[in-house]
Amino acid sequence: DDLANGRPLLDSIEDPFVSDPVRDARLRKMTEKPCNAETPADELAESFLTPNEVFYVRNHMWVPVVEEVEADKHGINIELPDGDVRTYSIGELKARFKQHTVTAVLQCSGNRRNDMTRLAKQTNGLQWTVGAISCAKWEGVRLRDVLADAGLSLSDPGEDAQHVQFSGLEAYGASIPIESAIDPKGDALLAFKMNDELLPRDHGFPVRVIVPGHVAARCVKWVNKIVVSDEESNTSWQRKDYKCFGPNETSQDWDKYKSIQVMPITSAITRSKLKPIAKDQLGVRAAGDVPKDTASGRVVQLEGYAYSGGGREIQRVDISLDGGGTWDQARLVDDEKLEQGSKAWCWKRWRYEGTLPTVPDDDKGEAKTTFVVKATDDAYNTQPETHKSIYNLRGNLATAWHR
Amino acid sequence: DDLANGRPLLDSIEDPFVSDPVRDARLRKMTEKPCNAETPADELAESFLTPNEVFYVRNHMWVPVVEEVEADKHGINIELPDGDVRTYSIGELKARFKQHTVTAVLQCSGNRRNDMTRLAKQTNGLQWTVGAISCAKWEGVRLRDVLADAGLSLSDPGEDAQHVQFSGLEAYGASIPIESAIDPKGDALLAFKMNDELLPRDHGFPVRVIVPGHVAARCVKWVNKIVVSDEESNTSWQRKDYKCFGPNETSQDWDKYKSIQVMPITSAITRSKLKPIAKDQLGVRAAGDVPKDTASGRVVQLEGYAYSGGGREIQRVDISLDGGGTWDQARLVDDEKLEQGSKAWCWKRWRYEGTLPTVPDDDKGEAKTTFVVKATDDAYNTQPETHKSIYNLRGNLATAWHR
Ligand SMILES: [Mo]
Ligand SMILES: [Mo]
Repeated sequence: DDLANGRPLLDSIEDPFVSDPVRDARLRKMTEKPCNAETPADELAESFLTPNEVFYVRNHMWVPVVEEVEADKHGINIELPDGDVRTYSIGELKARFKQHTVTAVLQCSGNRRNDMTRLAKQTNGLQWTVGAISCAKWEGVRLRDVLADAGLSLSDPGEDAQHVQFSGLEAYGASIPIESAIDPKGDALLAFKMNDELLPRDHGFPVRVIVPGHVAARCVKWVNKIVVSDEESNTSWQRKDYKCFGPNETSQDWDKYKSIQVMPITSAITRSKLKPIAKDQLGVRAAGDVPKDTASGRVVQLEGYAYSGGGREIQRVDISLDGGGTWDQARLVDDEKLEQGSKAWCWKRWRYEGTLPTVPDDDKGEAKTTFVVKATDDAYNTQPETHKSIYNLRGNLATAWHR
Repeated sequence: DDLANGRPLLDSIEDPFVSDPVRDARLRKMTEKPCNAETPADELAESFLTPNEVFYVRNHMWVPVVEEVEADKHGINIELPDGDVRTYSIGELKARFKQHTVTAVLQCSGNRRNDMTRLAKQTNGLQWTVGAISCAKWEGVRLRDVLADAGLSLSDPGEDAQHVQFSGLEAYGASIPIESAIDPKGDALLAFKMNDELLPRDHGFPVRVIVPGHVAARCVKWVNKIVVSDEESNTSWQRKDYKCFGPNETSQDWDKYKSIQVMPITSAITRSKLKPIAKDQLGVRAAGDVPKDTASGRVVQLEGYAYSGGGREIQRVDISLDGGGTWDQARLVDDEKLEQGSKAWCWKRWRYEGTLPTVPDDDKGEAKTTFVVKATDDAYNTQPETHKSIYNLRGNLATAWHR
């Protein structure tokens, strides 16, 4: 019985999070209410498509409740600059529009924020390590097809059509530039499925926006309203949170810079392990030297990911085992056959095996070295060397070399 | 009389450069034959559109001779994957196709190569400083319109249409991906005019390709042949020269990386000057200290440019007067009204005024500091910190912080 003295229990009224789904225990929780949890490092470069259960969760509020049997009746209001409003149910979208499949990475603008805190200075925001990024296969209908059906001219949307604003059932909102919504090669979707399953509730059931190559903050979940406007979404998530100021800028004049949309290049080492010493090698070592608990000269195996926004493809992944002094190239995993869509919207997983440099012991008797990864995309953009040089108070886009 | 013993003078036969145009004395010559000459630093950030006379010159061979009165008869052969060939004269292109105007930067992949040599290690190639970049207004016809007229389906060019190859009268050749040629927002042109004049001979008279946002090496001059193919141009300029290897890679497996097309972000300081000391300040200084020939505490004025390829707009230009220790933002010059085209194809000029840090004298009695500029574009890509980390033998894309 849900009633106490004939009225609903107080905490079920006051806590909108009470209906949040149960999450996989492997997710690394940052906050519980709202749920923010990163994909564990061991899972990141393990598979090209991140399994739904460990796909990172970035919620700004609670998870809205839409019953599965009611899903097809869920409506999306679309409002054009001339004031015309058209409502589409999911049932209608599925029945009337061509289905489209895209594989794409989603990444939080705060991915690797903790690196910036650790290596530069304290930042404000969830202290994500390397796991606020995941990759999935998304199925749905093209946003451009739906906007055209609602009456927007794709060839000439008009001066009043500068931005496409999205709102979700829980009140989050954000927008993208009109070009990103209607670009025939942009692959922007209203998605119903994720990795061949219905969208999990944490990821927007029954429908979310996917804008490949853009920051995940624009890929609004549980979307129920779309407005084509001459203005950006007026939420603070659009106008304030997701911007980057200069290393010195403490007064945040929010209108000074553009909202983060297309993501810059980044990469990360997600796993490293020392190869066991082969028996014959052990023999040689033991014969020559006093056996020491040192890794110098041993073989290390690294793995990780590299990703660039805007559909730019990763060209090259450079690895250093000595803090950036010397470099070598990682092997890019051959995942192209799994990619779908008009551009390179996915990450490249990489693998590397190399021999650790011989490092003299420090005064604690320890030999230390630093592994570094940096990537280059097909516009030959690469990552900045230090977090200090790109420091910003909010810790957004902490894309420096990963060490 | 041009004849010696009734035959042409030997050197006028053997030297194809004899007909090269006379160049402006302000251009900084790297080589004479072929002519390679950079825009002088003083002219770079002086005007938004670089005057034709000081627009940098990058020739791979001699300058072909096309008489002005014959220009409209100059023909371009267009060959489609199915073998269809269609020839267009410039007269026909001008008469039958809609004229289109675009302002765009052209930049050599070797711009700032000398910085890489100076700050990392010797590189092979023309030792450009900051002037292998310029900006102009280009007028002509859209490449996509002409390809469509020749019979290419823009909506479905087909599997055999992967690249568009260009050849020029002097035998240089290069190619671009089909998307760059037919993208409705790509603004790729066959251009006849530059800054409201006929194309100067050094810049491709009577017609050159302009692919905004891409490396200038693809913007073939004196173009007379266009082939739509499943392969890149097979010239070494396409398959070899314009690529970037890793800092450690000495054996150049040319097929390993993609040809440079869309350019990464870069910036440069083109001019710096100390402001004269105001009389009253001079008094204060003279009263307190023994007058010294030092710049500490004086006001410095810097100017320069920042540019990112692919139509990405410059967001922010960061300046450091102490070698990267602290940062401030430059003022971006308001040139938007001069921009034409679908995307941000131009550079941003910037200006900065700041006070020099007080620097202790070194052992030679000199106080030195280092000015640094780095820029950020609207995908929040930024420049690498050191040339060492992006070093490549050919010295391509030397885009590190400019100091
Ligand atoms: Mo985010
Ligand atoms: Mo070049």
